[in-house]
Amino acid sequence: MGDKNEEFVVTPWEVRGIVDYDRLVKEFGTQFIDDRLLDRVKRIIGEIHPLLKRRIFFSHRDFDWILDKFEQGENFALYTGRGPSGPVHLGHMVPWIFTKYLQDKFDAELYFQVTDDEKFLHDPHVSLEITKNYAMENIIDLLALGFKEGKTFIFIDTDYAKTLYNIAIKVAKHITFSTVKAVFGFDSSINVGMSFFPTIQAVPCFLPSVLKGKNTPVLIPAAIDQDPYWRGIARFVAPKLGFYKPAQIHSKFFPGLGKGGKMSASEPNTAIFTTDDEELVDKKIMNAFTGGRATVEEHRKLGGQPDICPVYHYYEYLFEEDDKKLKEIYNSCKLGTLICGDCKAILANKVKKFMKEHQRKREKAKDIVNEFILKD
Amino acid sequence: MGDKNEEFVVTPWEVRGIVDYDRLVKEFGTQFIDDRLLDRVKRIIGEIHPLLKRRIFFSHRDFDWILDKFEQGENFALYTGRGPSGPVHLGHMVPWIFTKYLQDKFDAELYFQVTDDEKFLHDPHVSLEITKNYAMENIIDLLALGFKEGKTFIFIDTDYAKTLYNIAIKVAKHITFSTVKAVFGFDSSINVGMSFFPTIQAVPCFLPSVLKGKNTPVLIPAAIDQDPYWRGIARFVAPKLGFYKPAQIHSKFFPGLGKGGKMSASEPNTAIFTTDDEELVDKKIMNAFTGGRATVEEHRKLGGQPDICPVYHYYEYLFEEDDKKLKEIYNSCKLGTLICGDCKAILANKVKKFMKEHQRKREKAKDIVNEFILKD
Repeated sequence: MGDKNEEFVVTPWEVRGIVDYDRLVKEFGTQFIDDRLLDRVKRIIGEIHPLLKRRIFFSHRDFDWILDKFEQGENFALYTGRGPSGPVHLGHMVPWIFTKYLQDKFDAELYFQVTDDEKFLHDPHVSLEITKNYAMENIIDLLALGFKEGKTFIFIDTDYAKTLYNIAIKVAKHITFSTVKAVFGFDSSINVGMSFFPTIQAVPCFLPSVLKGKNTPVLIPAAIDQDPYWRGIARFVAPKLGFYKPAQIHSKFFPGLGKGGKMSASEPNTAIFTTDDEELVDKKIMNAFTGGRATVEEHRKLGGQPDICPVYHYYEYLFEEDDKKLKEIYNSCKLGTLICGDCKAILANKVKKFMKEHQRKREKAKDIVNEFILKD
Repeated sequence: MGDKNEEFVVTPWEVRGIVDYDRLVKEFGTQFIDDRLLDRVKRIIGEIHPLLKRRIFFSHRDFDWILDKFEQGENFALYTGRGPSGPVHLGHMVPWIFTKYLQDKFDAELYFQVTDDEKFLHDPHVSLEITKNYAMENIIDLLALGFKEGKTFIFIDTDYAKTLYNIAIKVAKHITFSTVKAVFGFDSSINVGMSFFPTIQAVPCFLPSVLKGKNTPVLIPAAIDQDPYWRGIARFVAPKLGFYKPAQIHSKFFPGLGKGGKMSASEPNTAIFTTDDEELVDKKIMNAFTGGRATVEEHRKLGGQPDICPVYHYYEYLFEEDDKKLKEIYNSCKLGTLICGDCKAILANKVKKFMKEHQRKREKAKDIVNEFILKD
């Protein structure tokens, strides 16, 4: 989870500081995505998504086992989700876009959990009505990405609580308060809803097996802050309940437009929301922190610093799929030939184009949302 | 909860030793049922049930407030329940019989919770299939007592988990692990299902208000071991959620047929189950511990001790409604004119008669059970 005494913190409820991903891999006991694994993915499905090639999805646990199963003809299911604490921003969509690629390439079912209960329990100032409302809004953003009907099962926890609770208590029977204390850093002042909740988040790891009546491998594409749920709860309990341990593939955090740190809805000026209009997108990007120098002269002389620049990272994560072009941006920034104003303007146009298309699809998604929802 | 270092223990999961009810009233901060309250009940509904008159229901919290509400024309709902850990014995039926009387006299709705989740979470050796099976069997015993259709709502937790969870998380948001630790004596080795469960048991205190969409007074008739749920959880949370605090009326424990202690399904030789046949009832009663002396001669000389005699208490709790006749049994035992063999034989006949009738009603109840069940 990172160490609060050091320079960064990574928990399911807080990501702060400049994240040292190498250290997370070591602390969490995961594996780096290596070239051998990429070659294998390419051999199986013929294509490597930029988010994987660029190691935005950089770490995994048992992804190779998932590929074994797939090659043996055993289909796996995907599981990811969303805590509906506010509107969706671009950072939330990174794992979803990757999940869509996995669904398409592996013809995999997706189970998507919307944890309105968690967000209600976590925030003293938020009502269940608010989290449920965000839940529906967030689902519309998800569906705008084009997930497959009949293969995509979305559930809001409070609307699917009967199914979830019946499995969660089987998980909970094996999870002591000591365990959640150790895994999540809770103390006795935590409310008993929050200390129970990790069992609810573990349920979808086993839900495909329960619904199909046969043990089904599950792969979880998600940002690495969610790892304690899988490492500390779901994988610990799986063998006790007779299920496969869920596999993970972990992403880094999408940066905010400010200096350092991930994109966060709690800092709206440095986050681009899916409902932002063109003017607002322009404004946020033009006001972004960059790796550029104090003056254009200095920039041309010293060159920029793309590695610490959120604008560059936007190209890298989502807005420049062509590796050659991305390299050009990187190099011309370094050389000082690409100045920040121009670089931002190009990005802003790409983002606005993406947003316009997303907003169009978002409107259409409103009509089909009920086809995707699991309810009790 | 009693004190484990002293001679008795009373928790929702364990009742052991000779219970000092006076001390419980003091420790739990409840009120004794007094003559003034009995007079008031008699004035309102014209009749006092023997279980109340004899102070088997001996303690309360806000029962007078419930009567105020009733007299002001505001109907209250009853809430009691059952942990389906095994078959029903006579001890379980004492609060149910009293609850039936309250339903009839006050024309009150009854909400009856069957906590199969709790029993599954509590006992490492029990599956959910087993607790669900007992749940249905236990409900049939309840219905054999003649509760009113359309006014009686029974729910098995796992079958009503969506409704319950949605309210429970609102309770849970206000209940810390420290609180359940203090209220129930849990430590960190408790599983997180058990530490969440008190919020599920609190839900029916508010369920009538939620279902009706208006604040509804609730009276809980139950044995006093359940009091921590009401005192420590439901009454604490009620004002925070805008509900009335639930009122309680507490019973003593129905004795087992052994020496001291309450009737317990875990000691089947000293418990009479509703499905026991006549031969078994005879055998169990004839083998019962009594307050009688070692020999008939001694008994006639010294007299018996009805106060410590489970056979006498059976008359008192359920099998002799006539106060005058009960007094005669007491006195003739004390005088030594009634000897144990005769006293047991009379009781056995009464119990067998009750059982035969109950078993007949039990069979008929199987046909109507679905009319009473709330499910998601």
